[in-house]
Amino acid sequence: MSEDRKPWRIGIAGLGVVGSSLGKFLAEAPDFSPAHGRAVVTGVSARTRKDRGFDLSDVAWFDDAVALAKSPDIDLFVELIGGAEGVAKAAVEAALESGKAVITANKALIATHGQALAKLAEAKGAALLYEASVMGGVPAVKMLREGLTGEEVTSVAGILNGTCNFILSEMERTERGFADVLAEAQKLGYAEADPTTDVGGFDAAHKIAILAALAFGGAPNLGIVEIEGIDKVDLIDIRLARDLGYRIKLIASAERDGEGASIRVNPALVPLNHPLAQAGGALNALFIEGRRIGRIYMQGPGAGGSATAAAVAADIADAMARPIRPVFQAAAEGLGKRGAAAGGDHRDKAFLRLMVQDRPGVIAAVSEALAKANVSIDSFLQKPVEDTGHVPIVLITHPASASALDDAVGHIAALEALVEAPRRIRVARI
Amino acid sequence: MSEDRKPWRIGIAGLGVVGSSLGKFLAEAPDFSPAHGRAVVTGVSARTRKDRGFDLSDVAWFDDAVALAKSPDIDLFVELIGGAEGVAKAAVEAALESGKAVITANKALIATHGQALAKLAEAKGAALLYEASVMGGVPAVKMLREGLTGEEVTSVAGILNGTCNFILSEMERTERGFADVLAEAQKLGYAEADPTTDVGGFDAAHKIAILAALAFGGAPNLGIVEIEGIDKVDLIDIRLARDLGYRIKLIASAERDGEGASIRVNPALVPLNHPLAQAGGALNALFIEGRRIGRIYMQGPGAGGSATAAAVAADIADAMARPIRPVFQAAAEGLGKRGAAAGGDHRDKAFLRLMVQDRPGVIAAVSEALAKANVSIDSFLQKPVEDTGHVPIVLITHPASASALDDAVGHIAALEALVEAPRRIRVARI
Repeated sequence: MSEDRKPWRIGIAGLGVVGSSLGKFLAEAPDFSPAHGRAVVTGVSARTRKDRGFDLSDVAWFDDAVALAKSPDIDLFVELIGGAEGVAKAAVEAALESGKAVITANKALIATHGQALAKLAEAKGAALLYEASVMGGVPAVKMLREGLTGEEVTSVAGILNGTCNFILSEMERTERGFADVLAEAQKLGYAEADPTTDVGGFDAAHKIAILAALAFGGAPNLGIVEIEGIDKVDLIDIRLARDLGYRIKLIASAERDGEGASIRVNPALVPLNHPLAQAGGALNALFIEGRRIGRIYMQGPGAGGSATAAAVAADIADAMARPIRPVFQAAAEGLGKRGAAAGGDHRDKAFLRLMVQDRPGVIAAVSEALAKANVSIDSFLQKPVEDTGHVPIVLITHPASASALDDAVGHIAALEALVEAPRRIRVARI
Repeated sequence: MSEDRKPWRIGIAGLGVVGSSLGKFLAEAPDFSPAHGRAVVTGVSARTRKDRGFDLSDVAWFDDAVALAKSPDIDLFVELIGGAEGVAKAAVEAALESGKAVITANKALIATHGQALAKLAEAKGAALLYEASVMGGVPAVKMLREGLTGEEVTSVAGILNGTCNFILSEMERTERGFADVLAEAQKLGYAEADPTTDVGGFDAAHKIAILAALAFGGAPNLGIVEIEGIDKVDLIDIRLARDLGYRIKLIASAERDGEGASIRVNPALVPLNHPLAQAGGALNALFIEGRRIGRIYMQGPGAGGSATAAAVAADIADAMARPIRPVFQAAAEGLGKRGAAAGGDHRDKAFLRLMVQDRPGVIAAVSEALAKANVSIDSFLQKPVEDTGHVPIVLITHPASASALDDAVGHIAALEALVEAPRRIRVARI
């Protein structure tokens, strides 16, 4: 804790919103972690040279992020480029190879190559920290990695993509369809020009793969995540779910399942009075359930340049503190990748929306189709006719296996009165 | 991260619910933090020798906790005795003096002597960790100390005492008075035989003093905490607050105030749809607000042997990781104790309940009394007469200074129609 040590020389690759915010913060508060001496930005790399809101005159410029990562004039490399492959990966590898601490906000990289990078980091004795990759400024990674060491976490579940949460919240609030709200979100900068990563559920999948690794003591295993995005969520389902006392959210969840894990991202119904239903707008939220700790809930802004930069800064302080700690819960060499359990015994409640011809006997037929598959009904709603001659029937089943629900939907789809394919959405197990 | 290092020898002083749970956990999972080798209980101290649920046959017994703290046969001392003074303090000091890492769940000790103990710990190069002192298994301390390093936290506010939260929740749920529910809580083991520490607000005061120190970069300063317990909360106020859309909670809050801090514990009204209003039963909950991170919310069980033991275990892993990190946000030597700002400009909304004679002109008189003090009304409710000839009038003011509210209450108390002193409860600023 002496004040006279040499400053930590920080290199930042990627000067977008987060990188610029971080650069500004370190320029204003190089002593932000007083126990560890100064943290000074000495090198940066970005695609274009322009004003980033902080003084770059004494900072070395690198056109090539890998060259920055290798530079002997930096001690700690911050990767804010993004993407699982390409220059981000090459630069992180180069920095670790040269024994530098690496801090990244890159969820795709950690979810895809986490174990290999952790092995490299541990072999070189270098820190590899990634708090900013999940839930922005909410320290979910630190919580699972350090705050719950030794705890047998049984499940984590939450809302991990702010863009999807914003879109679903806006669809409900303004009664507009997906495409319309997406276009608005793009205009406001809440969604990318190519929104696939967010609305397709892939961003949330990266994040839940990372959290599951920390929660269950394995390596990230993106390959086993079941992924369904929000692009097929219709306004009518949002309305009808609400009539039944639920809200539709994009839920990312991971459950310990014997030696394996069941990890999925999908639109799901959450009871209106549940904290996850009340986390609106671009908020992120997470439940952690453990054998001894019970249920812990965290909520906060999941993105934003300054919140994410704050998470990177906390990681910089952590790297300066030099704890003896593996990248995940245990040394990377020995980490298994918990595979998904062979399915079958996952029992979920399902929301089913059926558009049917408005004629006698339809409800009886639907009810029989469900009974044939041994699926029973928890709640049921038929809405008044809207003069199209078609009516929506919605129901929520009692918990049933995926195969029973497949059967039930098959039987229903075969009914003559159906005018379009049944829509099926999970009810979250939370 | 080698596997062949010597085990960490743990001494536990205090074998109540938490200590026994910790002993059992370590007996079952000595390798719970695989990066750090084994953690083995080698010495214990408690008042009586009896079965604690784990094998004590190879564990040295100390009648005196200070002797355990000084023993050369332990590396890490866990203090679960409690109390700001006496043997707990002496034992912690002795352990730190001998250079041992200390882990404690003792909020009174840290809130009262935190800075002096931190100075000793830092002088001896010993860790002093206290995650379990606040919010049980929810890592609030780690979050503020490490997860938000460098962040300018502007306020923290929440529910930090599970006993009070349980009592208030039960009063509302079962429509019973304070004394009645307290007796039940004592029978259930949720409240102590002498409940003063909890229901008087002192336990929450210890905790918010610790969180405020971490949030604002100072030393704990218990002396400036304004404390009011829940023992004067009447069922009628819980009911009337609810009619106005609020729930009464014991709120502990700390706000940055220039160079000082305003820290208080008091019953306060929280809007029904606010997360803090929905944290019922024995839950603890906390909002952290910062300049860059926005608002983060955490919630979880605030007590319980196994959850608290889990927090102690996480601290043991942290001590084994040996990070370079001060006990608070910066070296103890330089920590100021943020004093409370000279009051005056704290503007709160207030709930006022007046029991008045049921006769014409009373509302006009109350309204005039408020106007004279320059306090205006946000909402107002008069409940139907209950045949006593007295009616409750409740109102919520717009934000006003403490002195204006004092004036208003003074004017109202002087009214002839008043049949008992006005009851005034803050509306939480959250």
